[in-house]
Amino acid sequence: MNYLEDFNWRYATKRMNGKPVPAEALNNILESTRLAPTSLGLQPFDVIVVEDAELRRLLSPAIYNQPQVNEGAALIIFAAWKKISPDKVDAYIKNIAVTRNTTVVALEGFKNMILDSISGKSDDQVFQWNARQSYIALGYAIAAAAFEKVDSTPMEGFNPAEVNRILGLEEKGLSAVSILAIGYRDEEKDYLANAPKVRRPAESFFTIYENEPVA
Amino acid sequence: MNYLEDFNWRYATKRMNGKPVPAEALNNILESTRLAPTSLGLQPFDVIVVEDAELRRLLSPAIYNQPQVNEGAALIIFAAWKKISPDKVDAYIKNIAVTRNTTVVALEGFKNMILDSISGKSDDQVFQWNARQSYIALGYAIAAAAFEKVDSTPMEGFNPAEVNRILGLEEKGLSAVSILAIGYRDEEKDYLANAPKVRRPAESFFTIYENEPVA
Repeated sequence: MNYLEDFNWRYATKRMNGKPVPAEALNNILESTRLAPTSLGLQPFDVIVVEDAELRRLLSPAIYNQPQVNEGAALIIFAAWKKISPDKVDAYIKNIAVTRNTTVVALEGFKNMILDSISGKSDDQVFQWNARQSYIALGYAIAAAAFEKVDSTPMEGFNPAEVNRILGLEEKGLSAVSILAIGYRDEEKDYLANAPKVRRPAESFFTIYENEPVA
Repeated sequence: MNYLEDFNWRYATKRMNGKPVPAEALNNILESTRLAPTSLGLQPFDVIVVEDAELRRLLSPAIYNQPQVNEGAALIIFAAWKKISPDKVDAYIKNIAVTRNTTVVALEGFKNMILDSISGKSDDQVFQWNARQSYIALGYAIAAAAFEKVDSTPMEGFNPAEVNRILGLEEKGLSAVSILAIGYRDEEKDYLANAPKVRRPAESFFTIYENEPVA
């Protein structure tokens, strides 16, 4: 399995050709976001998927009219929870109890540990923490898209307040933090389609402390 | 290629068995972090790799003595840039020019766009932005480890000031934001080794706006 080749193949696609992504590929990419790990397992974000072309047209100005919004096949929007309510923690603990065939009482210590780590943070700190977790899932989704030979463009350049308003996210206690457009590259129109990937050289990116050889 | 099976196979390993990770697997996992996409392509974080057992022992108290620190084979530490200096932007622009056989002058518009997006942010906002980017690479590393059948545990439960001090990160303008311990699960000691994965059900995790069928 040559996943590094797929990681090299993908790039931030600037122009897409309007071709739809098969349902199975989309489902696999989405399932990846659901399987991604998160701190304490809380999954403190929701994933909004917009295939609907009309809704993408409506969202377009809020995403500064980047062409992938309409030229792609779907937008995958990561929206972090603005806070972590005790209800959400209760639902999580119940989910563990049911999935692992144990009891809520047996999980009380873990539950209190979660509540403690939330109560030690300001609302903004909780939101930032939640947002970070969603970026692990964003990484999983970008990787999964590459494995499906689906192009993808992660975007932070949008107006969150406008995206939230159009999708009714605030009322659900959510705020959009990143958007992944997926679709297929338009090799003719995209000046980046055949450009070599630019990355920091390993010597400057890594600091490695190897094991001391045994004398 | 069944990457969803690998995503299901992995879990936050609590106890590891001390076996070393082969150099090729480690190198592939690290290369994944280097290939991960970041906002504007800046890669605003460094990756510190600690295989050295003595240095891991030294770090252990700062990571609250979690057993994976010493029982694993290596720690992969993601340390975000505390700011993005004009020097870093210049180095990036030069790297693009060399890699894509163009000139620094031709990239001036892009460079100014980067400088603008930094100058519009406070130091803390820049750091938070950089930290988020490193979580995409963390996601890539967790995925890559699973493909290599290497266990991994992402950790945020550590004392960043202490980790920074021991590794001399502050002087380099860095601060540790996450740590990935890699190694191999100890199935006998790890109560989670055979526990079913707990995830939010798709119905609550996703909101999907499908394409309207053409009438």
